Amino acid sequence: MDSIEVAGGREFLARLEHGKDWRAQIETFAEREGVDSAVFFGLGAAQDARIMFYDQDEKEYEPVEFDEPLEVASLVGNISWLDGERFAHTHATFSRPDGSTAAGHLDRATVFAGELYVRTFETTLERTHDEVTELDLWPLS
Amino acid sequence: MDSIEVAGGREFLARLEHGKDWRAQIETFAEREGVDSAVFFGLGAAQDARIMFYDQDEKEYEPVEFDEPLEVASLVGNISWLDGERFAHTHATFSRPDGSTAAGHLDRATVFAGELYVRTFETTLERTHDEVTELDLWPLS
Amino acid sequence: MDSIEVAGGREFLARLEHGKDWRAQIETFAEREGVDSAVFFGLGAAQDARIMFYDQDEKEYEPVEFDEPLEVASLVGNISWLDGERFAHTHATFSRPDGSTAAGHLDRATVFAGELYVRTFETTLERTHDEVTELDLWPLS
Repeated sequence: MDSIEVAGGREFLARLEHGKDWRAQIETFAEREGVDSAVFFGLGAAQDARIMFYDQDEKEYEPVEFDEPLEVASLVGNISWLDGERFAHTHATFSRPDGSTAAGHLDRATVFAGELYVRTFETTLERTHDEVTELDLWPLS
Repeated sequence: MDSIEVAGGREFLARLEHGKDWRAQIETFAEREGVDSAVFFGLGAAQDARIMFYDQDEKEYEPVEFDEPLEVASLVGNISWLDGERFAHTHATFSRPDGSTAAGHLDRATVFAGELYVRTFETTLERTHDEVTELDLWPLS
Repeated sequence: MDSIEVAGGREFLARLEHGKDWRAQIETFAEREGVDSAVFFGLGAAQDARIMFYDQDEKEYEPVEFDEPLEVASLVGNISWLDGERFAHTHATFSRPDGSTAAGHLDRATVFAGELYVRTFETTLERTHDEVTELDLWPLS
């Protein structure tokens, strides 16, 4: 496991805006506050969601759409640079009225309500292409 | 996304007490330590659980009961004031012996065992009624 | 709920190594950096996984194997001492191409890709046997 020690920067509590996209809001926040690396976690509810499954053989993301109201049981992610923009890498676990779940790599979701903790670091992290996984990963080594 | 920058306060590691309610214990802790805002995450196991699904059309919580032993795969939440009391807004993901899951907004759960990280802030946060969602949200704007 | 106040130590961002075991990598990291207590959360993908369900009556862990590619929707855990070694207590929520999930106490998983935030504390925590649950818990009281 490659790791870097980071110095804690700023901390934020945030409320996601109803009716707008979950991930885009985090990225707009990151842009506004000049966040060059951060982690976050949170919870809430969404009106719909699109998650992506990365096919580890084909090396392609496949979308799955959920057009239904969902609780956001867990939202975990981080912020770093990707292709010249701030990218919020976000994984979510959703649940339905009977408690059943769906989860994965979050592409988009319409916020019903959401609460987030964000911790930034005094480090600039930029993702680079990884040849083994064909994903954009942190170059920590 | 509305956000406030917060100054980190105190940090705690906690062990939930066997046989008692999960959320009530967090709120008792918050009261004892004078926590006016915090975030937490953790893991463990429960003897049973009641989660609530918020009906986004009817604007009402509907309960779902799980009367079975469950792992707590993820527990994410925050502490703020609501109606004059400290409230632990808590979302949980549970799992069963075959790995299948249930998740949602946690109302109550009998602890089997649990471990929690709590980070407090030097900010007093009080929830207020939001007219759009009819939920009690942070007034961050 | 028993709790101890802890002083924050060091913070790390980490990238899990492709093809190697998830939990073992965290423990090797903890050993290398001399971590005596920490919490972590993260996300990623795994090539397979073994989770354990603790039978609350029999007081035994039962394994469940997943021999399939999985997204890691959430990974939550902590590091403390157990039987003279650093132990990464880790709970994970996984998802499949259709978004369906599996979750629990993580024994092992082959990393496809993974990103982790680790926060250490200036405290040495060692698990001790708990007679009620027959688990090894933090002696916080």
